[in-house]
Amino acid sequence: MMIPYRKSIEPLAPYIPGKPIEDVKREYGLTNVVKLASNENPLGCSPVAKAAVIRAMDEANYYPDGNCVALREKLAGKLGISTDEIIFGCGADEVLAMCGKVFVNEGDEAITARFTFSQYAASVESMGGKMIYAPMKDHGFDLGAIASAVTPRTKVIFVANPNNPTGTIFGKDALYKFLSDIPPRIFVVIDSAYEEYVIDPCYPSYAYVKELMKKFNNIMLIKTFSKIYGLASLRVGYGVANKEIVTLFEKVRPPFNVTIQGQAAALASLDDPGFAEKTARINRESMDYYCGKIGEMGLEYIPSQANFVMTNVGRDSREVFVGLMKRGYIIRPGAPFGMDEWIRVTMGTMEQMEGFIKALGAVLFLRA
Amino acid sequence: MMIPYRKSIEPLAPYIPGKPIEDVKREYGLTNVVKLASNENPLGCSPVAKAAVIRAMDEANYYPDGNCVALREKLAGKLGISTDEIIFGCGADEVLAMCGKVFVNEGDEAITARFTFSQYAASVESMGGKMIYAPMKDHGFDLGAIASAVTPRTKVIFVANPNNPTGTIFGKDALYKFLSDIPPRIFVVIDSAYEEYVIDPCYPSYAYVKELMKKFNNIMLIKTFSKIYGLASLRVGYGVANKEIVTLFEKVRPPFNVTIQGQAAALASLDDPGFAEKTARINRESMDYYCGKIGEMGLEYIPSQANFVMTNVGRDSREVFVGLMKRGYIIRPGAPFGMDEWIRVTMGTMEQMEGFIKALGAVLFLRA
Repeated sequence: MMIPYRKSIEPLAPYIPGKPIEDVKREYGLTNVVKLASNENPLGCSPVAKAAVIRAMDEANYYPDGNCVALREKLAGKLGISTDEIIFGCGADEVLAMCGKVFVNEGDEAITARFTFSQYAASVESMGGKMIYAPMKDHGFDLGAIASAVTPRTKVIFVANPNNPTGTIFGKDALYKFLSDIPPRIFVVIDSAYEEYVIDPCYPSYAYVKELMKKFNNIMLIKTFSKIYGLASLRVGYGVANKEIVTLFEKVRPPFNVTIQGQAAALASLDDPGFAEKTARINRESMDYYCGKIGEMGLEYIPSQANFVMTNVGRDSREVFVGLMKRGYIIRPGAPFGMDEWIRVTMGTMEQMEGFIKALGAVLFLRA
Repeated sequence: MMIPYRKSIEPLAPYIPGKPIEDVKREYGLTNVVKLASNENPLGCSPVAKAAVIRAMDEANYYPDGNCVALREKLAGKLGISTDEIIFGCGADEVLAMCGKVFVNEGDEAITARFTFSQYAASVESMGGKMIYAPMKDHGFDLGAIASAVTPRTKVIFVANPNNPTGTIFGKDALYKFLSDIPPRIFVVIDSAYEEYVIDPCYPSYAYVKELMKKFNNIMLIKTFSKIYGLASLRVGYGVANKEIVTLFEKVRPPFNVTIQGQAAALASLDDPGFAEKTARINRESMDYYCGKIGEMGLEYIPSQANFVMTNVGRDSREVFVGLMKRGYIIRPGAPFGMDEWIRVTMGTMEQMEGFIKALGAVLFLRA
């Protein structure tokens, strides 16, 4: 390569996604494969979202409304905020990427927890910044450790609540203390992609964070239509922050970053809260069943507030990953997260979890 | 704002898109509005693409295949290249944005023509680079002027062929000489988004550029499904380059940047070449009609190889823009491109162009 490229991109590695169902079918000669690997919604999406996409295909030849006006107005109404307090992205991933573009210069630092979502580091490192990993406590974010890691070079802090891949949360008081402790010049990203699955009453829900934003001007809350609304395919996520911050994000937002179909599906989904409620209910039923069975097997797991459960399989998780694939189940091995002996299992329907428990038992206890 | 942000983003301004149909209907109390503003396909999209999207909604809850494997394999076969010589983007816009991320450091320079597509500058400026604008010749790219503007800081050159907004092309010989003249350390982006509309035999088509790539290792060809395939809503574009360059782009590509629906629609479109051929044929018929009528009106226009025609209205184009909107036609005023007395008119169906010619005549010649 004789063309000189930015040295900052040298260490960047492509994201490792969950393995696609079609690949596993082909490689293992299977006809039925269940994917419990990417924290996707086992119920599909709302029928009203599907109908909206079909209608939107009559406008397939047009560019999307870059400002997502209809979706923005409806969502702002639902959230009880002004329309200029939302930034939309091609998935929450893109909003996370914009955090780096807005705040991170070459050599700047950001902080997050040791085991968390990889796109925080990608956002920072793609701009030539350095991600500092604070130690964790009880498999969850240790906000005190993060505050202690602040230096004059710290520009952004990413916290996930619930955390991915561990499913842990931190509470209202911990968040309030954390925000009070760190300098207000640091931008704090609170990723609440899994909020709707949480049942713990200590959790700082949207309503609580919205109140916090009146006192702290340095916060962005990240949300997505990929999980509880089952629209991962269409890439619609957003950030909520004060108008001054959103104005900065608009400067780096690509002009047409959310498809017409994604906007239509997200808008329609807001009219079907029953779908989201059903998703959360079934998730909790499946999780109660799964954790009960895992406990009976004598396996350690991390109690989760999200739609997945980290499970300690007591051996190299890649072996277990392959064993499960042969039986038609795709999960996520913990190795890429740095948790070599753990697997992350997304909660499916009850029927899927019953089948999965059988397969997991066979892989862990019946093999030669 | 007490949070320090990157000073490079300070001058960035949001993209000015074509005005949405719904906005014009609302503002002017119209029921029928024709948009000839964004070089969109007046025929919609292929019915097979629509059917593919409807089928893909059964997978709405899943994340897209980040590698676009099925689309990649089909497209590589069609293009006669290896699958690792294509980078996909959320529209060609995203591939253009990646050019900056891969090659442009703070203070670097890029070069393009004075009046061209604004996203080249956005790509460079968002990384803190500086866009140098070379003068044009006969409303088109002057490749000699661009070569003369090269400095040791030049990292990327963007050329549009056909150019947007002027519709002009440069020929095979000019491109060959240009590539021979500039240092091979400079990355050259050839944006051929409108290639399928070209009828001039001098044009360096895909087949020609593919041959050039054997001699010159510093080229990327940019293509899109937004225009000839009528899929602007779904945001699918791509770049073709050698494997080493594509590997660099993959480092900065977001993990899930093309929706499942976009991949499905693009893949299906490749099975319906008749739709693309019909689009090109109708475009040429509409353009011949339009240019004939414009000539009869005594208006100057720039002969175009694309699906739009720059037309000199001899007065402030924003006035004409408003006058046309009141009559139900949205076009693009030239002012944001720096061509104040010109309008850019996208070719619609023959019926749309007949109506538009009447409206334009009324706006230009009948007003008080």
